[in-house]
Amino acid sequence: MTSKNKTALVVSAHSADFVWRAGGAIAYHARQGWQVKIVCLSFGERGESAKLWRRPGMTLEQVKIARRDEAQRAADILGAEVEFWDIGDYPMRVTDDTLFRLVDLYRELQPAFVLSHSVKDPYNFDHPLAMHLTQEARVTAQAEGHNPGQKILGAPPVYAFEPHQTEQCEWMPNTFLDITDVWEVKRRAIECMAGQEHLWEYYTRMALQRGVQAKRNIGITASRNIEYAEGYMRLTPEVVETL
Amino acid sequence: MTSKNKTALVVSAHSADFVWRAGGAIAYHARQGWQVKIVCLSFGERGESAKLWRRPGMTLEQVKIARRDEAQRAADILGAEVEFWDIGDYPMRVTDDTLFRLVDLYRELQPAFVLSHSVKDPYNFDHPLAMHLTQEARVTAQAEGHNPGQKILGAPPVYAFEPHQTEQCEWMPNTFLDITDVWEVKRRAIECMAGQEHLWEYYTRMALQRGVQAKRNIGITASRNIEYAEGYMRLTPEVVETL
Amino acid sequence: MTSKNKTALVVSAHSADFVWRAGGAIAYHARQGWQVKIVCLSFGERGESAKLWRRPGMTLEQVKIARRDEAQRAADILGAEVEFWDIGDYPMRVTDDTLFRLVDLYRELQPAFVLSHSVKDPYNFDHPLAMHLTQEARVTAQAEGHNPGQKILGAPPVYAFEPHQTEQCEWMPNTFLDITDVWEVKRRAIECMAGQEHLWEYYTRMALQRGVQAKRNIGITASRNIEYAEGYMRLTPEVVETL
Amino acid sequence: MTSKNKTALVVSAHSADFVWRAGGAIAYHARQGWQVKIVCLSFGERGESAKLWRRPGMTLEQVKIARRDEAQRAADILGAEVEFWDIGDYPMRVTDDTLFRLVDLYRELQPAFVLSHSVKDPYNFDHPLAMHLTQEARVTAQAEGHNPGQKILGAPPVYAFEPHQTEQCEWMPNTFLDITDVWEVKRRAIECMAGQEHLWEYYTRMALQRGVQAKRNIGITASRNIEYAEGYMRLTPEVVETL
Amino acid sequence: MTSKNKTALVVSAHSADFVWRAGGAIAYHARQGWQVKIVCLSFGERGESAKLWRRPGMTLEQVKIARRDEAQRAADILGAEVEFWDIGDYPMRVTDDTLFRLVDLYRELQPAFVLSHSVKDPYNFDHPLAMHLTQEARVTAQAEGHNPGQKILGAPPVYAFEPHQTEQCEWMPNTFLDITDVWEVKRRAIECMAGQEHLWEYYTRMALQRGVQAKRNIGITASRNIEYAEGYMRLTPEVVETL
Amino acid sequence: MTSKNKTALVVSAHSADFVWRAGGAIAYHARQGWQVKIVCLSFGERGESAKLWRRPGMTLEQVKIARRDEAQRAADILGAEVEFWDIGDYPMRVTDDTLFRLVDLYRELQPAFVLSHSVKDPYNFDHPLAMHLTQEARVTAQAEGHNPGQKILGAPPVYAFEPHQTEQCEWMPNTFLDITDVWEVKRRAIECMAGQEHLWEYYTRMALQRGVQAKRNIGITASRNIEYAEGYMRLTPEVVETL
Repeated sequence: MTSKNKTALVVSAHSADFVWRAGGAIAYHARQGWQVKIVCLSFGERGESAKLWRRPGMTLEQVKIARRDEAQRAADILGAEVEFWDIGDYPMRVTDDTLFRLVDLYRELQPAFVLSHSVKDPYNFDHPLAMHLTQEARVTAQAEGHNPGQKILGAPPVYAFEPHQTEQCEWMPNTFLDITDVWEVKRRAIECMAGQEHLWEYYTRMALQRGVQAKRNIGITASRNIEYAEGYMRLTPEVVETL
Repeated sequence: MTSKNKTALVVSAHSADFVWRAGGAIAYHARQGWQVKIVCLSFGERGESAKLWRRPGMTLEQVKIARRDEAQRAADILGAEVEFWDIGDYPMRVTDDTLFRLVDLYRELQPAFVLSHSVKDPYNFDHPLAMHLTQEARVTAQAEGHNPGQKILGAPPVYAFEPHQTEQCEWMPNTFLDITDVWEVKRRAIECMAGQEHLWEYYTRMALQRGVQAKRNIGITASRNIEYAEGYMRLTPEVVETL
Repeated sequence: MTSKNKTALVVSAHSADFVWRAGGAIAYHARQGWQVKIVCLSFGERGESAKLWRRPGMTLEQVKIARRDEAQRAADILGAEVEFWDIGDYPMRVTDDTLFRLVDLYRELQPAFVLSHSVKDPYNFDHPLAMHLTQEARVTAQAEGHNPGQKILGAPPVYAFEPHQTEQCEWMPNTFLDITDVWEVKRRAIECMAGQEHLWEYYTRMALQRGVQAKRNIGITASRNIEYAEGYMRLTPEVVETL
Repeated sequence: MTSKNKTALVVSAHSADFVWRAGGAIAYHARQGWQVKIVCLSFGERGESAKLWRRPGMTLEQVKIARRDEAQRAADILGAEVEFWDIGDYPMRVTDDTLFRLVDLYRELQPAFVLSHSVKDPYNFDHPLAMHLTQEARVTAQAEGHNPGQKILGAPPVYAFEPHQTEQCEWMPNTFLDITDVWEVKRRAIECMAGQEHLWEYYTRMALQRGVQAKRNIGITASRNIEYAEGYMRLTPEVVETL
Repeated sequence: MTSKNKTALVVSAHSADFVWRAGGAIAYHARQGWQVKIVCLSFGERGESAKLWRRPGMTLEQVKIARRDEAQRAADILGAEVEFWDIGDYPMRVTDDTLFRLVDLYRELQPAFVLSHSVKDPYNFDHPLAMHLTQEARVTAQAEGHNPGQKILGAPPVYAFEPHQTEQCEWMPNTFLDITDVWEVKRRAIECMAGQEHLWEYYTRMALQRGVQAKRNIGITASRNIEYAEGYMRLTPEVVETL
Repeated sequence: MTSKNKTALVVSAHSADFVWRAGGAIAYHARQGWQVKIVCLSFGERGESAKLWRRPGMTLEQVKIARRDEAQRAADILGAEVEFWDIGDYPMRVTDDTLFRLVDLYRELQPAFVLSHSVKDPYNFDHPLAMHLTQEARVTAQAEGHNPGQKILGAPPVYAFEPHQTEQCEWMPNTFLDITDVWEVKRRAIECMAGQEHLWEYYTRMALQRGVQAKRNIGITASRNIEYAEGYMRLTPEVVETL
């Protein structure tokens, strides 16, 4: 299987999460020919659109449209496809219909890896719920007796991307991805998020900090220069070709 | 750097530990041309040689000789070099001389990865001490001001191999290595341990259990058949080429 | 903002919990002029009213009335307002209506701090659920797009008060409040709980134990004499004026 | 109370779980005259019947019948009663009706101990849910106000039996049961599971590994020879007659 | 083996620790005919004798004598033997001579269980050190090659008795011992500690609290009435006769 | 006690640590009239002076002088006193003489709070050792029988300042200090560290990130604008005046 045939799945609770937290990984794999599919479960229309709501006369529908537009442009820049499932936020609620829709997507896409939120987050209840859904759908997609006849899912690793306050979320990066080569792409995607301009520099600094840390953790390939990186927490063990 | 130039370091508290716990990884990398160096800090002469002590008239020196012989033959079979540092066991005590000797070895060997014991073990105090030494020597070998002029060490990952009662040791495998192709070599090395015959089947079963688990955790390469595996706990994050 | 304008919110799963676990904090702040609002989600009518049920001829309604009466008198003594939401217990179930009702209360009250149960409790499933509700409502109340136009909530700290068996609940006190000056008030409130007389001494001893521990943890103000204290587990970081 | 009057309850998410994970304990207590009741919440018909689904023309109903038959025969061999509640799997969903049915069973059976799954399992969402149900029903069965007049439940200990990948599930055995004397019975029950033949040897090896570990943890009764054992994680403290 | 031949070992960092924390277990087993041996590593002469130091003209020697006298009388009351090893406190330092002395004692005594301090304690560095010594000596006493010819030790369980601030010490009771029948004995032993009178009531209340909790955790034997209890944290798994 | 009489103690493993990790807190309290005393246990001469070692002809003595000079200038800028104890680094070794020296300093200074490194750090063994020393000396300084006649220490809180890779060090900030007003001072102190210029921007970004997080965690004082902050992990509970 060459990169051209490979696929990845990103499950984002709100429509901007995938940009801040996984934009580098998306751009990096997309550039190598991967098909990357993003699911935005909601637009973050109620809980993560403060700036839009301060405009006079805004309605929920207008906020959603603005957020969708930003996210679509960011996904285009990153080279990924995006779907908007519009299931609501703050609080997010997940039905079995949503679960089975995601199961279908897993089976159709057969992703080689999956990205979503941290398993815990005391500041945000939609994020862990999105991860729970991501994991439960994955397990259901592996079940031979769910829609028998469909091709079942293998065991793609699930990674938790970086939450806002890592230490409070019991999130620990065990995997770093060098995103230096695609940083400029991620930054352009970030700049689509007109409503959250205060976060642009926050996530730029975060990428630089993770870049420094990634460099510190490289073994025999220390010649490589890493400037920007993203941290991930892989949830299940890895089977390696070499230690 | 091809495999031929690559090196690995294994720090074993007692002279049989490297066989049960890392024999597969040693044989696997050796077969690919790696230079694998094993340091046996002690022979396990006091605490892990019960059967030898039950022979009439045994002395500490005789036990050491018997244990050294077994370990040397096992290392030969696995294709690795072994050094015996004879610092004593039950209790093991580590001086700064031992620390600096290991620092020298790190710098000379420049290993691409390092294997040692679990960080905790309520059943065994020599094992965590060996790991502590392994980590402290690694950090000292990175210090520019230690024996200035020598080539300093990079940042090779350290892996904890599997302890006897994993759950009590807070040891969790995040990495599996398929050792099916070298299993027969590991089994022959195991059979050198005449004094601990009761463990032969124990560690054979362990390799089979880890093999089943490894298969469950493979993603896109599910075509591979894994029968035997070893589990490792990587202590620091990994910088990956692809998620 | 002086104490007179300050408010606090206490979310109690059953109608007596707030007395045993937070009665001191309630009385202490009330005495300083704070408006303290208690929400009793249920009366503990099924699961925490054993003594009442042993009276002949009791019905669920009679138990509720008795429990409500006790709790109302306790709240009066402590100087707080109390609301009874009567959502049922053992098992407790939370609907979105309850969530939004609590969101409304957060926004109306704008509490400076919030008290509820421990995050885990293997002996009690209503308690962690009450805390979950408390946290989810807090986050929803911060969402600009929830009932736009209302004043949104700031970031009041949430504290978990003490569960019955702290160590089993992964509850660790990081905050002690000296309640010596209001102890006599708390004791009187405790004595309203006619149905649980066996707990009066239990929680009196607990306050004394926490008093001894609080004294041990005081730094430069050791002149203060603490006899009774309550322990709390603050869930999020504190921003301090001085270390 | 003699063994003849004693009862135990086993809550199994899928119809084979009780065999692999608790078959030894069931047979051991049954042989001593205990009444052991097993509840199979589902047949594992969607998620744990891969081999059956590969037969041509299978329907969900046929899979259930085959699984039920296997489980019934296994229970018969072990000497236990089994009920099939057929609430579905992958994903499992628990209604309050199911909760109250289990509460009724607790009160009727008055079990001296209860067995179910691990509290966490990233590979399986039905397992932790079954344990959650088991614990919540136990607490509800203790509530005096639930169906007043019925005999309420005492405080039987709940044990988590062994999950597939223990370390990933934060499962740690604090209790071992010697099942050497009933091993042959458990093995026969295992062999009823025609659809999962690949697991027969896996759980045989597991029993042998736990046997070796149990022997290591015996104190003054070291004369006993343990060959096969099962590990359990007791969730709440034990009140002992002697340390 | 009847109770008359059974032995237990208690390792106490300072000369009063065994009274507060394990006096009930000591008296309980002694009354049943056990030989209980207490080792006081130090007198707590520097760090736990504040009241004595406030007497005019006290010297280290005088403090030791007073503390020894109190501890001897307490041990007599409890029915146990006590040895004073006088290795110093605040800070305590352990040499290999002390380790081997304890190994000898283990082998001579062959205790059925061992009691010492919690594994962690941020308020006290002597306590965890005493536990470390207790565990390392136990493992060394199991080593066939340590003083070959002596009878080696089996695998007696080690329990951590209760520290002052349990939650800060990551200490969780998984075992309760009913000490109601010997409470009066423990109280008399407590009252020997003239220098720490402020702790008499503290540990009386603690025993009452643990008594209430123990009652809550009893299963089928709920007829028993527990008034006073001690909590213990067993460090290694138990092999049970029945679940 | 006014600020003018208040004192604080900072224990820094290497001579630059106090600048990166606690420079803001030092400057902030110094500006308010506190006497802040810094102890540099070593110069970081072997392990944290890579750039100096790359200059031709450097000796250990020259490196120490250069590092001392940098640290002295940084302390002057921050408004603190600094002592250099020169006990060596990589590996650091602590004797009882060093312990007692620190005990003396505790008693002389009577600090209101103490700052040192994280309790764990797999990348650095000197850092946790410095914290261990800091805690053990604190406890020893509280012992009435250590140098009787001296004024004993109260119970000043100990805070762990931020390590390089927080998540790997199990370090979680529970306390934020706003250092916006003294940021310019901290930055000037940072710029004294000529040998580690690559870290200037790293720790500037870290202060900005912590500033954003601190703002998120403020409750009723949200009017305050925080741009730069430092995070701390308080190790023991706090006794508060108000929740």
